[in-house]
Amino acid sequence: MMQLTLALHRARRIHPAKTAVVFAGRRWTYSQFADRVARLAGVLADLGIGPGDRVAMLSHSSDRYLEFFFAAFWVGGIAVPVSTRYAQPETAFLLQDCGAKVLLAGDEFVDMAEAMRVEAPGLRHIVYAGEGDTPAGMIDYEAAIAARAPIPDARRGGDDVAVLFYTGGTTGRSKGVMLTHINCMSNSFGGMVHTKLGGELIGLHAGPLYHAAAGSRVFTNTMLGATHVVIPRFTVKGVLEAIQQHRISFVSMVPTMMTMILNEPDLDTYDLSSLRLIGYGGAPMPVATLEALMRRLPQVGFAQAYGMTELSPACTYLEPADHSLDPDKVHRLASGGRAIVGCDLRVVDTDDNDVPVGQIGEIIVAGATVMKGYWNQPDMTAEALRGGYMHTGDAGYLDADGYVYVSDRIKDMIVTGGENVYSIEVENAVLTHPAIRECAVIGVPHPLWGEAVHAVVTFKAGQSAGADDIIAHCRQRIAGFKCPQTIEVRDAMPLSQANKILKTALRQPHWAGRAKAVN
Amino acid sequence: MMQLTLALHRARRIHPAKTAVVFAGRRWTYSQFADRVARLAGVLADLGIGPGDRVAMLSHSSDRYLEFFFAAFWVGGIAVPVSTRYAQPETAFLLQDCGAKVLLAGDEFVDMAEAMRVEAPGLRHIVYAGEGDTPAGMIDYEAAIAARAPIPDARRGGDDVAVLFYTGGTTGRSKGVMLTHINCMSNSFGGMVHTKLGGELIGLHAGPLYHAAAGSRVFTNTMLGATHVVIPRFTVKGVLEAIQQHRISFVSMVPTMMTMILNEPDLDTYDLSSLRLIGYGGAPMPVATLEALMRRLPQVGFAQAYGMTELSPACTYLEPADHSLDPDKVHRLASGGRAIVGCDLRVVDTDDNDVPVGQIGEIIVAGATVMKGYWNQPDMTAEALRGGYMHTGDAGYLDADGYVYVSDRIKDMIVTGGENVYSIEVENAVLTHPAIRECAVIGVPHPLWGEAVHAVVTFKAGQSAGADDIIAHCRQRIAGFKCPQTIEVRDAMPLSQANKILKTALRQPHWAGRAKAVN
Repeated sequence: MMQLTLALHRARRIHPAKTAVVFAGRRWTYSQFADRVARLAGVLADLGIGPGDRVAMLSHSSDRYLEFFFAAFWVGGIAVPVSTRYAQPETAFLLQDCGAKVLLAGDEFVDMAEAMRVEAPGLRHIVYAGEGDTPAGMIDYEAAIAARAPIPDARRGGDDVAVLFYTGGTTGRSKGVMLTHINCMSNSFGGMVHTKLGGELIGLHAGPLYHAAAGSRVFTNTMLGATHVVIPRFTVKGVLEAIQQHRISFVSMVPTMMTMILNEPDLDTYDLSSLRLIGYGGAPMPVATLEALMRRLPQVGFAQAYGMTELSPACTYLEPADHSLDPDKVHRLASGGRAIVGCDLRVVDTDDNDVPVGQIGEIIVAGATVMKGYWNQPDMTAEALRGGYMHTGDAGYLDADGYVYVSDRIKDMIVTGGENVYSIEVENAVLTHPAIRECAVIGVPHPLWGEAVHAVVTFKAGQSAGADDIIAHCRQRIAGFKCPQTIEVRDAMPLSQANKILKTALRQPHWAGRAKAVN
Repeated sequence: MMQLTLALHRARRIHPAKTAVVFAGRRWTYSQFADRVARLAGVLADLGIGPGDRVAMLSHSSDRYLEFFFAAFWVGGIAVPVSTRYAQPETAFLLQDCGAKVLLAGDEFVDMAEAMRVEAPGLRHIVYAGEGDTPAGMIDYEAAIAARAPIPDARRGGDDVAVLFYTGGTTGRSKGVMLTHINCMSNSFGGMVHTKLGGELIGLHAGPLYHAAAGSRVFTNTMLGATHVVIPRFTVKGVLEAIQQHRISFVSMVPTMMTMILNEPDLDTYDLSSLRLIGYGGAPMPVATLEALMRRLPQVGFAQAYGMTELSPACTYLEPADHSLDPDKVHRLASGGRAIVGCDLRVVDTDDNDVPVGQIGEIIVAGATVMKGYWNQPDMTAEALRGGYMHTGDAGYLDADGYVYVSDRIKDMIVTGGENVYSIEVENAVLTHPAIRECAVIGVPHPLWGEAVHAVVTFKAGQSAGADDIIAHCRQRIAGFKCPQTIEVRDAMPLSQANKILKTALRQPHWAGRAKAVN
């Protein structure tokens, strides 16, 4: 049976003394990591957690966050990582929705956790997993695991749900995506096969672990028996310092993080010679940024994963070998890559018929990484998984070599004068302008065309450009109807909890009170 | 869901025109391969095969053997590859045991297939999959698929049984090992991760496809979307010519085949420059042979998989990087490697307690590659899988780095004067003698010690040595009580259907009429 905990059994048997986790001056071997997990599982069992019960964690990243995931599996329960960006009502909704009995709370979240005792009545116990003094009424993490003997692995696995990742909060109620042991481990296998990373890697968790992109790497790196380095949250200097100090060989990031690193003035002062591979995904990658980073870090390989939480989360990889600046291959950088081994990716029309190569349709995916469903949402699950394929809601096309090009969220597509415009194509054109740092293209209301193409940009430090200049720059690269009609300059982009540019927020002022959905 | 057929869907969507299968002058693209599979599935459906029904094949290897596997999956059935070495009663037992309704028969097996109409009453139809004229009463393979439209994939997968590989015929009744879609695909993932092979490989199927070692590569290479080259059966020249002609990059073999290749006088006349990796397993690998082959083919990597049919079949890999002739690493060549990602491998005493590092016990394994069970043998299944671990019946130990050293089949262990002697250790010592080509060590009855250590050897062409000389050679390498007491010279070794040396046959004359089980 596929069991995430077998990763721990294997790693501690193969190399008990190898460093498993490094965080803030703490360092645990695989023997210690497994022991702490088995003790924490005992604590959770004492608090009433049994097979299938939910355990939530609300915290920035830490060594304890990794222990939380595996202890939830070890006791046979379901791990529910909670977004650190949620407002209190959102957190309350999540905890009510999943019915978590136990919440682990990190520093900065003690007050919100305390408030949940009232707002989420099913919540029975709060474990304080921070670095300070344990608040009254909460259970001290370290004291509890020190006092509790390890328990045997409950040996849940297969199609049992391992994790609920909540997603989609911007489109109304957030939904708990049920990922099984098979889902999570199949995603990890795909990552290993397409990046060819092995157990020798030293991996940095740079992104938030409540998100499937970063959370799934916890499983992959443990399956490989690799060393995890954890930083509390993403900062440019924090990532660069960690790479230098811990000789990191692999880090995965979202494109916004990579843009920030590329724009770091002190980038050259860090020793990044240990870095072998940067994995990225979670949002469209501007090709100009990717090219610039590839030129800046020529010794580093790159691998893109495209997917979504419902796909555990990767369904394609653009492999390191596909990342080439050769003129005859460079166009591939705009692609999300090819379907991972074991999955089938199709592009279909509204009746789920395959469309021809090169034609845009909806991307749908079948395979072991497709979620079990949305927690307590059978109708929404049936709709998303109709015909056995996850309907991603992403528009895209396949080329003749099976590479997928993601054009847009279907709902983000701009229809102007009867033409479909995909924002990513426009954004890639705008981003080739030397003064532009970031760009997001949205549709705004237009009395004649329905929608007009509108670009929101930020400039690189000390640089600027006029709207006419930017639009003229685009006209040399893409068809006239795709070029922005208007340019809006901002100091910074509004970012989602996953550091994606929030197009919702950019659209809101334009569409307030109008018919188009703004999320 | 994990579905083996998704491998075909993926490959034909990514690269429909890529060569999928090459056999005897025929060449099929992935588009054609998938089309032929969907048509053959239609033929099988017309013959009454539905979900869970068994379809058997009795044939040497061919392109149609690959189509048989995938058509069985496509129609939702179970593929049952039949050993080409079975005598008629064994074949009849197998077909009765699994209740196959349809049998595909290759050339040389037409008469036996015909006889099965009487001996296996459940058998309803025979499809002739050979190269000659179709015998009366049998269905012509090519005519049938040409006449039948493709059917939709039945989309079976997950814990559904995909294949029954029969094993263990030498220990009484043979048993059908039920491998699910998850089993087979997890084994393939392990192979990909530990060999780092990708879709670019051109793989040669050199071994018999009714055996899990070779059969499982059909699944792996299709999942990768790689090119399969098939030869009807193993011959030294056939393998070497195929490597040269088709620019083979990967081939897997059993140790006996590697010995034969090493001893091929014309080896140097073949262009083997395309070869990147030789995978091997299925029997203990004599270290001297491996070292000699590594020196002979320095540009080739080697990967050993240790396992058994019940483990789909690999549970460990000795990775290419572990194959080193450096003095401080060369001892690793005697190891089967480390547990594959996703599996836990333990060495335990008779009560299933872990024994310390370096101590010999039974190897047991948990993970996604552990079989669903033995077909219609619930008691035997429960016994083998007790505690959630497959009990391999192999004796071995783990070193401090998690490498497993397989000492012997537990039942093959020799007990002499109260000491346990593991035949592999003795065989490795004997094989360092320059005149020895093959060696098999068994226990023979001894009035004083219970058993004595007895070595059966073959010599290299034109060479020989005396028993005293061979024994003296061993005394310099292993403890006196482990050295052979007696040496038996043979012209050739008796081989099993998987080209393993048949110790059963070697033991028989010594133990006939005595208490020790001779299998």
